[in-house]
Amino acid sequence: MLGLMQNHPLLISSLIRFAERHHGDAEIVSRRVEGDIHRYTYRDLAARSRQVANAIDGLQLGFSERVATLAWNGYRHLELYFGVSGSGRVLHTLNPRLHPDQITWIVNHAEDAVLCFDLTFLPIVKAIAARVPTVRHFVALCDAAQLPADSGVPGLISYEAWVGAASDRYEWPVFDENSASSMCYTSGTTGNPKAALYSHRSTLLHALAGALPDALCMSARDAVLPVVPMFHVNAWGLPYSAAMTGAKLVFPGPAMDGKSVYELIEAEQVSFAAGVPTVWQMLLAHMQASGLRFSSLKRTVIGGSACPPAMITAFNEVYGVEVLHAWGMTEMSPLGTVCTLKNKHLELPPEQQMKVRLKQGRSVFGVDLKIVDSDGRDLPWDGKAFGDLMVKGPWILSEYYRGEGPSPLVDGWFPTGDVATIDADGYMQITDRSKDVIKSGGEWISSIDVENIAMAHPGVAMAACIGMKHPKWDERPIIAVVRKPGAEVGRDELLAFYEGKTAEWQIPDDVVFLEAIPLGGTGKMQKAKLRELLKDYRLPGL
Amino acid sequence: MLGLMQNHPLLISSLIRFAERHHGDAEIVSRRVEGDIHRYTYRDLAARSRQVANAIDGLQLGFSERVATLAWNGYRHLELYFGVSGSGRVLHTLNPRLHPDQITWIVNHAEDAVLCFDLTFLPIVKAIAARVPTVRHFVALCDAAQLPADSGVPGLISYEAWVGAASDRYEWPVFDENSASSMCYTSGTTGNPKAALYSHRSTLLHALAGALPDALCMSARDAVLPVVPMFHVNAWGLPYSAAMTGAKLVFPGPAMDGKSVYELIEAEQVSFAAGVPTVWQMLLAHMQASGLRFSSLKRTVIGGSACPPAMITAFNEVYGVEVLHAWGMTEMSPLGTVCTLKNKHLELPPEQQMKVRLKQGRSVFGVDLKIVDSDGRDLPWDGKAFGDLMVKGPWILSEYYRGEGPSPLVDGWFPTGDVATIDADGYMQITDRSKDVIKSGGEWISSIDVENIAMAHPGVAMAACIGMKHPKWDERPIIAVVRKPGAEVGRDELLAFYEGKTAEWQIPDDVVFLEAIPLGGTGKMQKAKLRELLKDYRLPGL
Repeated sequence: MLGLMQNHPLLISSLIRFAERHHGDAEIVSRRVEGDIHRYTYRDLAARSRQVANAIDGLQLGFSERVATLAWNGYRHLELYFGVSGSGRVLHTLNPRLHPDQITWIVNHAEDAVLCFDLTFLPIVKAIAARVPTVRHFVALCDAAQLPADSGVPGLISYEAWVGAASDRYEWPVFDENSASSMCYTSGTTGNPKAALYSHRSTLLHALAGALPDALCMSARDAVLPVVPMFHVNAWGLPYSAAMTGAKLVFPGPAMDGKSVYELIEAEQVSFAAGVPTVWQMLLAHMQASGLRFSSLKRTVIGGSACPPAMITAFNEVYGVEVLHAWGMTEMSPLGTVCTLKNKHLELPPEQQMKVRLKQGRSVFGVDLKIVDSDGRDLPWDGKAFGDLMVKGPWILSEYYRGEGPSPLVDGWFPTGDVATIDADGYMQITDRSKDVIKSGGEWISSIDVENIAMAHPGVAMAACIGMKHPKWDERPIIAVVRKPGAEVGRDELLAFYEGKTAEWQIPDDVVFLEAIPLGGTGKMQKAKLRELLKDYRLPGL
Repeated sequence: MLGLMQNHPLLISSLIRFAERHHGDAEIVSRRVEGDIHRYTYRDLAARSRQVANAIDGLQLGFSERVATLAWNGYRHLELYFGVSGSGRVLHTLNPRLHPDQITWIVNHAEDAVLCFDLTFLPIVKAIAARVPTVRHFVALCDAAQLPADSGVPGLISYEAWVGAASDRYEWPVFDENSASSMCYTSGTTGNPKAALYSHRSTLLHALAGALPDALCMSARDAVLPVVPMFHVNAWGLPYSAAMTGAKLVFPGPAMDGKSVYELIEAEQVSFAAGVPTVWQMLLAHMQASGLRFSSLKRTVIGGSACPPAMITAFNEVYGVEVLHAWGMTEMSPLGTVCTLKNKHLELPPEQQMKVRLKQGRSVFGVDLKIVDSDGRDLPWDGKAFGDLMVKGPWILSEYYRGEGPSPLVDGWFPTGDVATIDADGYMQITDRSKDVIKSGGEWISSIDVENIAMAHPGVAMAACIGMKHPKWDERPIIAVVRKPGAEVGRDELLAFYEGKTAEWQIPDDVVFLEAIPLGGTGKMQKAKLRELLKDYRLPGL
């Protein structure tokens, strides 16, 4: 027997409808590419989103056709979030930091029909325009007057002229909530990029759970600054959760330097900000140099990579801002865990509380976690055992868009590619990437743990631990080290430095000194390149 | 094109699974019918809920068969919430305050197969047992040893013996999220009771939206005391939201007096309590008499009927507890609005802020509101115009269980039977019941407004305003008044008292003095009986 409740599909259009009716005068403030500050309300946003929907209808785009963006965080991008998905098309946010060849590959794979871009990215669009045959319309996110005379992009139109000509009267269509709403490609380190294809249902459930007090805790009293880009997994869903709660939205545009971000936080009385550690490092450096204080910021969510303890301490103790560690993936919409404390942690002494805060946190309702060993068997939640982290839930990917081969799921669980521990309270901590963990004699060694010990030696500037084939143990760890200028630390001294700091069998078998360790564009160590560099290396005694 | 996210139906079993895995040691504390305090954890609750599911399977109950309860708020009732719904049956919470004849009618209408009851309610069960032929099993919520020797109920078994014999190994079944999960009958003032039949989907969405910061704001750091009964629209969904967030649950059992509730709040460090004004009145009276203070309570949600300003002030100013006015209906699962303030209200002077706090509040995400005139036309949101309040959303009823006649919806909107205003910020305020509002010359007069003015006169003990047929104006208001002992206020004096306090045409045409105004069991004025009493009354000059 079915229940007798009303049937309303969970659609992205319901977010903007709700924001308009119940929080019509709440503000959306954007630093524009043009440099100035633009401000309007959810009521305006709703009207402009309907204009976008009409404008797209005018292009005769079919249901589920892709509209791509190359854009900063701002109100026009937000209008596309609601106008594109709300009208039944798929919003495809492109990452402008990728190489134009990668962007070309992605646009062709997604078969984007429209490409909307901030003028900042005109050089990219020029470089790819001739190689993306599915794109029928190029739209520059600017006024008609700002359109370059000879843009080099065929048939380029201005967003304001295109959308401004459309009516703001529009009935949002009602359709299956499982319909695709938006997509985001991961920039995998190996192979071609792969796309997560989100649905209206997954987006709405993620927005609801993400706004809960133990997740991002969003209310109509918040002014939210998503520094995390709208092309990074929909800015962690913040635009959707903000519309759902009527929170004020503040967008930084392209200005992510410490001074610009600080000024925006103060001018707009931001209470909650979200971003990656790098941006917060720039903000803190600026504040320290100028002796500044926050007058409104209460909490910040940090994700994308692990947050250094010093940053958590600085925010907490110096500036009175609560730092929430969070973890997720493109394949997870992205929220998986947030490190909000339980009552029992509030009574802990500071150093023990910090140990909890350094974990990636506990599940947002809807996400289930487990860790498994090499044979797929469940490992205990004791904060010590570590294994492959698996996740499931209604906003977690089941298969990649146009993915080749079988579904990545294992018994319904998505393998994250991370290795983690989970403690008895459900707090998860990433210890390594699955491909970097060293498998020695049936036991796993975290390459990050081995590196952290070496990094604590005063003569070490950088350290990378990788596994080397071993006939008896399968793999054994070695540590590749870059010395600090003038430092003279040697192999035996460094290996002796490990004594007492870790189990005997987790101490590396050897040290290799290098001039430099290969780094990627975002500063991450590229272990695949390091392995290639050391392909002729042999472990001692073999 | 569909999205490529995992397919997980929204099921009530996912709540208890999540609570067990991620908040296994969070507590559930109950004052039992036996008088003592019982405490265990979500881990225990999950195991016992699985035992309930196995025990029900053992009775050969089909999918969607009804299991009824006559029970106070406590852990056994909670086990039935999860075990009955989670296993695919429908939990039917009966209101023990109804007359046994009404309960009999309801049990027969619902065709309940099992009836579980606290021993407090044995007299009711005895009185109805022979008249409810669909009930195949009677279960007393107690130990086998407590089972009365000659209960007078055929085949009566004890819950502990029944559930204790079942295994705690059970795989929660997966089924359509639109399946019925629970039901609740409204005790309508006219006609037979009618039932809302909730679904797993509606329950989960309601639990998510209800836990948001601007609704009930529930987190793992909360200790939640639902004083509102679990037989009143599932205790406003609190048991579900608590499991979803890992909040500690504290149940008062049958002891709702001020002293018992106060002691429980302090002993269990309750941070958040929810109930109707009557219970809070008893609590405040006890605290005032004994000079007590709260050490942990931060906020309380008050619903069920309008909260007097003096109570809001007492909680806020004397005890430092935030009072949130809320409004809902059995047909709405029940949450419709909660009166959490926006930033703009925080800056208002106290008396203006109080005006906002006295409103029933703004929409919880998912619920849409509108007010319409007699012709169904939308009325403005200006805080002045009032009309029939209509609602829609995924946890609002579409039709009654085994309802006769057409669906109650009007163009997809459920008519609440209330008359309300909505202001420009979306804050709704109930001004009257639709059946009580007086329609005079095409304009509406709020009977409550007319009564409030009379009640402000020092000689008036009670006042009820009703409409009387009028050949020209359709209806005109009169006011029925009970004088205070010794007071001598007369007709002309009272009518003169209205001058300057309301528009001329809203002043009643006449005053009728009575010894008493008919009251219902819960102390509400029964205007239908009053109209019957005054059936021979004629307006002056007619």
